[in-house]
Amino acid sequence: MSAPPGSLAMVPLIERKKRGEALSSRELEWLCSEFTAGRIPDYQVAAWLMAVRWRGMDEEETLALTRAIVNTGRTLSWDGAGSTVVDKHSTGGVGDKTTLVLVPLLAAAGLRFAKMSGRGLGHTGGTLDKLESIAGFRVDLPLEEVRRQVERIGCALVGQGRDLAPADGALYALRDVTATVDSVPLIAASVMSKKLAAGASVIILDVKHGSGAFMPTFAAAEALALAMVSIGTGAGRKVRAVLSPMEEPLGLAVGNALEVREAVAALQGGGPADLRELVLALGAEVLVLAGAGEGVSGARQKLTTLLDSGAGLDRFVDLVAAQGGDVEMVRRPELLPRAAFVTEVRSREPGAAWVSGVDARIIGEAALALGAGRRTKADRADPAAGVLLRARTGDRVAAGAVLAEVHAASTSRISEGEALVREAFRFSEAAVEASGFEVCAVG
Amino acid sequence: MSAPPGSLAMVPLIERKKRGEALSSRELEWLCSEFTAGRIPDYQVAAWLMAVRWRGMDEEETLALTRAIVNTGRTLSWDGAGSTVVDKHSTGGVGDKTTLVLVPLLAAAGLRFAKMSGRGLGHTGGTLDKLESIAGFRVDLPLEEVRRQVERIGCALVGQGRDLAPADGALYALRDVTATVDSVPLIAASVMSKKLAAGASVIILDVKHGSGAFMPTFAAAEALALAMVSIGTGAGRKVRAVLSPMEEPLGLAVGNALEVREAVAALQGGGPADLRELVLALGAEVLVLAGAGEGVSGARQKLTTLLDSGAGLDRFVDLVAAQGGDVEMVRRPELLPRAAFVTEVRSREPGAAWVSGVDARIIGEAALALGAGRRTKADRADPAAGVLLRARTGDRVAAGAVLAEVHAASTSRISEGEALVREAFRFSEAAVEASGFEVCAVG
Repeated sequence: MSAPPGSLAMVPLIERKKRGEALSSRELEWLCSEFTAGRIPDYQVAAWLMAVRWRGMDEEETLALTRAIVNTGRTLSWDGAGSTVVDKHSTGGVGDKTTLVLVPLLAAAGLRFAKMSGRGLGHTGGTLDKLESIAGFRVDLPLEEVRRQVERIGCALVGQGRDLAPADGALYALRDVTATVDSVPLIAASVMSKKLAAGASVIILDVKHGSGAFMPTFAAAEALALAMVSIGTGAGRKVRAVLSPMEEPLGLAVGNALEVREAVAALQGGGPADLRELVLALGAEVLVLAGAGEGVSGARQKLTTLLDSGAGLDRFVDLVAAQGGDVEMVRRPELLPRAAFVTEVRSREPGAAWVSGVDARIIGEAALALGAGRRTKADRADPAAGVLLRARTGDRVAAGAVLAEVHAASTSRISEGEALVREAFRFSEAAVEASGFEVCAVG
Repeated sequence: MSAPPGSLAMVPLIERKKRGEALSSRELEWLCSEFTAGRIPDYQVAAWLMAVRWRGMDEEETLALTRAIVNTGRTLSWDGAGSTVVDKHSTGGVGDKTTLVLVPLLAAAGLRFAKMSGRGLGHTGGTLDKLESIAGFRVDLPLEEVRRQVERIGCALVGQGRDLAPADGALYALRDVTATVDSVPLIAASVMSKKLAAGASVIILDVKHGSGAFMPTFAAAEALALAMVSIGTGAGRKVRAVLSPMEEPLGLAVGNALEVREAVAALQGGGPADLRELVLALGAEVLVLAGAGEGVSGARQKLTTLLDSGAGLDRFVDLVAAQGGDVEMVRRPELLPRAAFVTEVRSREPGAAWVSGVDARIIGEAALALGAGRRTKADRADPAAGVLLRARTGDRVAAGAVLAEVHAASTSRISEGEALVREAFRFSEAAVEASGFEVCAVG
């Protein structure tokens, strides 16, 4: 087996990155456009990716790479009349239904929010899968329809446009099989290329840290957040990142229809405190960035009122109706898909005990085993499957008390999910405090 | 453009190397055999190569990689009756005709020497090109013929067998286009895989340092030498390395027929002192490794006698005859190919001056420009072209004195070569000593 000759012009770029030098924006534009056009072989780009993983990139080079990726495709523009256009990115977590609440809430606050989301893969869920648990909901709208819908009701929740930043998909596919995913500049450039191409002027980033997050430590999450904010700001956008915990799942529901139900509860002013806190924290930062003229606390107050009044829920109903979904399922969430089998997972501790931890990653694996997610891109997600927690860290549970419900389409999935849920729970004989859900804004 | 899925099993190996871990010998065997079979895509191997360039390999992992490369092809065995079988590798230099002298000399000393050589590329020459300046000389003998010739006359000088260590060729081709050539463990494994596959029990390594060498510094050359000795010793061979200077060309002749002529002079007991010194140093180490029962100085004495008596030259004549070459060209080197144009390059210094340096790399570039080598693998080397130095470091040259001759097939090549030769020479008004040619054995 002998390798093809490769691109002669690519060799010195790999060489220089290997020595720790930054490539120029012209060189990165060339690299991304030639790679997307199939004129630089994968193996040369793979070597360059590993050199980037090794040597890193400074802020200027990371911004140049991001712009180069953006320039391989079309870019959207939201100029013209109308309010600020907002976008959001979350680095992904377990039970993260924040987008479902935040998007209609900010539309109710008078902003425009055109959110492009992804599907779940592995232990983390995806917004599109959650929305598709609502019968009839369409996530693949043509761009012109998205634009009209946003002008009309202030929001849309759709799939990532394939013609935005196409180099990102090609680079990601290569990183996935060459162990070069875990590079802060490459992650930041990947995320921000899609955000820049989608054209929003205000971008809010939710960077999670903890066992269930892509970035396990606070420090790693902070580094990624700062890199992303730097790119966005460098490209002239208003950007802020919020660091939020992902040791436990967010809220109690993990699984598509279960999470829609919890999101609806939050839009009715209820729902779990951590979910509500994250929505308000992210939303307040957005209002401040959008120049609403009030400080963070004023913005929080405004959003709290909108949540509790049901104004956000009204917008969510409008959004579901606009995208072909069954609005009745939102008004009466008990109509959402329900699993054939639901089993309570009960404590097997010998006596009363405190829950000292509920590992988010393992609960994510449990939801996956129950059928709520995908192990490979070809899998179909079961809308009804998942985990509903009934106890969280800091709760005192009696012997035999219910820890969680597992929902699935078969008893074998139930058994597998139940075993993982048990594995996720940690107990203590001494009293344990509830996890504080502390978020912090950076950038 | 989206990348193919790659080998799932390869991802964790890249990941672990990226984190600085050593792969096991079983994993490296798998990697090399699957890659050679075309079942691991180039881009995954490219990422692994860059991770190796980054993290390095310890002695054990380097040996395991070498063995894994060897095991992708056939291996030769020289068991049975007969004396020790010797092999040699040089890291390449300018004017390095050592093999042409050493191989017949050691055969005359009673050893068997089956040397597989390569062709020149870039500024360094190749033994095969030099031999082919002798009319009729065949370098592509079938292996059985090589074996019979070695048994009969004690030596053969042929091209590298394609079925030995095939993974090495595939890996090298990929390294060449992914900026991963300059890794000590990868270089050492590449060289030693071919030596181990060729089956010699005694291996002598000539590792050059200086401007004209692959390894510019003494420290880098020493590191490579130790890595190669460690592999050979680990694989049960007797190995020693000699570090030799390559700031100036070795000897005075650079170019194929010009070098054959100089090699014949050395085999007659004459020739440049540095060439003779290197031959004796390498040869003495080999005799000691082969257990000739005498120390280094006794071995040197024996080889000096064989050189001065013409016994080595007799073996060279036998070798040329056995491989179909025109023996008359060896007996009367003035019959070797001669260039259409020969020009003397004269000093343009205003008065007498000392030569303070003759840059080996630039003289190599001059020989290449004159037609003696190849810029790409497809080029043909001109047997007659090259540079013949007439002054070296430490010589005092009068104004207008001849510094070198340039030999080429056209006047345009002559002009280009002459300009480079001028660039290679450095002068001093103060007296300069001749470069000491100090070699040192390691391992």
